[in-house]
Amino acid sequence: MLKLASAGAAGAAIGAAGFGGAIKALGYELPSFDNQHSDVSTISFYDRYQSGISTPVQKHIYFASLEILIQSAHELQELFKMWTPIAARLMDGKQIEEPSTNRYVAPGDTGEAMGLDASRLTITFGVGPSLFEKLHLQDKKPKELNDLPHFPKDQLDEAYTGGDICIQACADDPQVAFHAVRNLIRSATGLVKMKWSQSGFNAIPADGSTSRNLFAFKDGTVNPATDEEYNESVWVKAGESTSWMTGGTYLIYRKIQMHLETWDRTSLKEQEATFGRHRESGAAIGKESEFEDFDVLEKDGAGKYIIPEDSHVHLARLAKKAILRRAFSYSSGMVSSTGAHDAGLMFISFQKNPQQFIDIQNSLGRIDKLNEYITHRGSAIFACFPGVEKGSYLGEALFTHL
Amino acid sequence: MLKLASAGAAGAAIGAAGFGGAIKALGYELPSFDNQHSDVSTISFYDRYQSGISTPVQKHIYFASLEILIQSAHELQELFKMWTPIAARLMDGKQIEEPSTNRYVAPGDTGEAMGLDASRLTITFGVGPSLFEKLHLQDKKPKELNDLPHFPKDQLDEAYTGGDICIQACADDPQVAFHAVRNLIRSATGLVKMKWSQSGFNAIPADGSTSRNLFAFKDGTVNPATDEEYNESVWVKAGESTSWMTGGTYLIYRKIQMHLETWDRTSLKEQEATFGRHRESGAAIGKESEFEDFDVLEKDGAGKYIIPEDSHVHLARLAKKAILRRAFSYSSGMVSSTGAHDAGLMFISFQKNPQQFIDIQNSLGRIDKLNEYITHRGSAIFACFPGVEKGSYLGEALFTHL
Repeated sequence: MLKLASAGAAGAAIGAAGFGGAIKALGYELPSFDNQHSDVSTISFYDRYQSGISTPVQKHIYFASLEILIQSAHELQELFKMWTPIAARLMDGKQIEEPSTNRYVAPGDTGEAMGLDASRLTITFGVGPSLFEKLHLQDKKPKELNDLPHFPKDQLDEAYTGGDICIQACADDPQVAFHAVRNLIRSATGLVKMKWSQSGFNAIPADGSTSRNLFAFKDGTVNPATDEEYNESVWVKAGESTSWMTGGTYLIYRKIQMHLETWDRTSLKEQEATFGRHRESGAAIGKESEFEDFDVLEKDGAGKYIIPEDSHVHLARLAKKAILRRAFSYSSGMVSSTGAHDAGLMFISFQKNPQQFIDIQNSLGRIDKLNEYITHRGSAIFACFPGVEKGSYLGEALFTHL
Repeated sequence: MLKLASAGAAGAAIGAAGFGGAIKALGYELPSFDNQHSDVSTISFYDRYQSGISTPVQKHIYFASLEILIQSAHELQELFKMWTPIAARLMDGKQIEEPSTNRYVAPGDTGEAMGLDASRLTITFGVGPSLFEKLHLQDKKPKELNDLPHFPKDQLDEAYTGGDICIQACADDPQVAFHAVRNLIRSATGLVKMKWSQSGFNAIPADGSTSRNLFAFKDGTVNPATDEEYNESVWVKAGESTSWMTGGTYLIYRKIQMHLETWDRTSLKEQEATFGRHRESGAAIGKESEFEDFDVLEKDGAGKYIIPEDSHVHLARLAKKAILRRAFSYSSGMVSSTGAHDAGLMFISFQKNPQQFIDIQNSLGRIDKLNEYITHRGSAIFACFPGVEKGSYLGEALFTHL
């Protein structure tokens, strides 16, 4: 099932997106890309792994968590069969169906992406633990797939927690990402309904350097980069989980509100001691450059840890677990009760086993200095299927052994 | 006071933004722009008119409506004096102050825009009718500046209505726009507080064609384009309003929720009859191309209006009033009570007299077919100062005649 046309991190070679038109507009010719697609903004849906995981991060995300209205595994299978070609068309920058000449019916595609290119759209599907219970499929539920435990300082809001199915749409244009989610949900009217959704953004510097979160610190410095690291931490290998998850991965979502006004009153020294990194460079405290390696147990002449032992980096590193962070910022207006910015981080991570995340979060525990400035407001976990081979469909392995 | 270095629609010549870095990354050299600024992503704060009005629309907006905590006109003047150089620095892509070497104080700039270019950031300031009452400045309040009348079908939420001061930050990067608003508000801690804020986006096709709203129809086709049209409809000329408004304009904000699920069940024929335009081309009904002129009173052989008389375009055109539309879409997750998308249009228009908008809205009245698919949820009006000459400050003319 996994003999596929291309391998590895599919998006990685594609590079920055959507600039083709602008470059042409300035009178330049684009170099010809030796690619199966007609433009650099298109990422293939059909691949060994689902897109939107190892794909270089895009500028925008629209994340939807769905509840199922269907009642059988067979209906679920039909749903994913239906969604497969739609997702492939969307990622190709096409409308979900060719426009009809019949003007007396509602358009097949909602149309707001007409004239826009694919904008590096990726669509990633996953299923939550509640799905298996609702459909009496407990024997198919990976033993790793459970609601996350309660962590210290969690103040979760049911309105941003859980879900049976997730659709993560990422693109360099927010309207393209929204259009994808809207049309996938619309195509499944009566089968699913939205439980919650959230949009987010990533500010990607033109030089390709690491994005900063709304606390102005670089986010995602220590991500897996090589195929080896992905195999080690992200992709489920045969025997490591339920068989249908081979080539898949687990997505963890945390809506983390950042108390910007409190943070903004904090000294730079304290901010850096909180993260364990320098703000401007992103280097670990005591180091010069962002990617310079460091040992959190290193002490100074006075016997004190150079990277404070209650700093985020120190505690996270002690867990000795690697995950793929693929976070976005959000700014959703104002918290009406306080007048503060309703803003923060859509923390999204991918790992072959949710325990990797749980170990890190437990290590952060109550003493992470960052806890003074953040509150976890939402939480969800989804098992993301392996990639889809042409002719197959999303989650096929889950259903073929029913 | 209006002898300024450059004239007219400042941003118009600058073109698409932020691609410089990407082009360089692909190995191209940028043409040298004969411009006072170092890169194509920078728009000058100092100009005859405020930026963000005639500036070609950017991809993102962060709009904040503020309440004042200050109690005198003098404090207000000091506030705008303080904001002036900060806004200029932000639009130049700089931090609001040079980083301090003192790590024991909070950073002067919140820092999340470090490494990002100016992204065609524009910042537009305005003052609402309530400001004049709070500060007992009724004699300075333009007689045109009043809360909008109640319109049929309005269902306004106080949480998105009104405000003493507005800051409209538009940029091609959402983090740059958010950073601008955040730092301006932070610099005025204790002087203002947020009343509401809203982020939005615009999907700009690579070929520069008109953006589509979330109903998939092109939005902004009939905007003023020439200096003459701007003078006719947008910029206040001497004698047309209170003297301090000469060179200014009135901003009207309407948060318009779009009922996407209802719209998506409607036939294409009905959708087009609702707008009075064809969806794909944007042409008026019966016409071939978007910019082809049309007469809404034209009838077909059977004596029926070709553009239905209850269509949005038909009714809007009957008012015979031109305004500058500068709208953005928003998608703010889900309406929790219904499970529907909480999405729609941040309608923003600029006109030399709010009556232009009121006349159009009154013409739409109860019979606009579009009313079936939208609900106005928020409303605000602000008098936007003229542009700022170097050495002067925002709203100087308002204060110099106190």
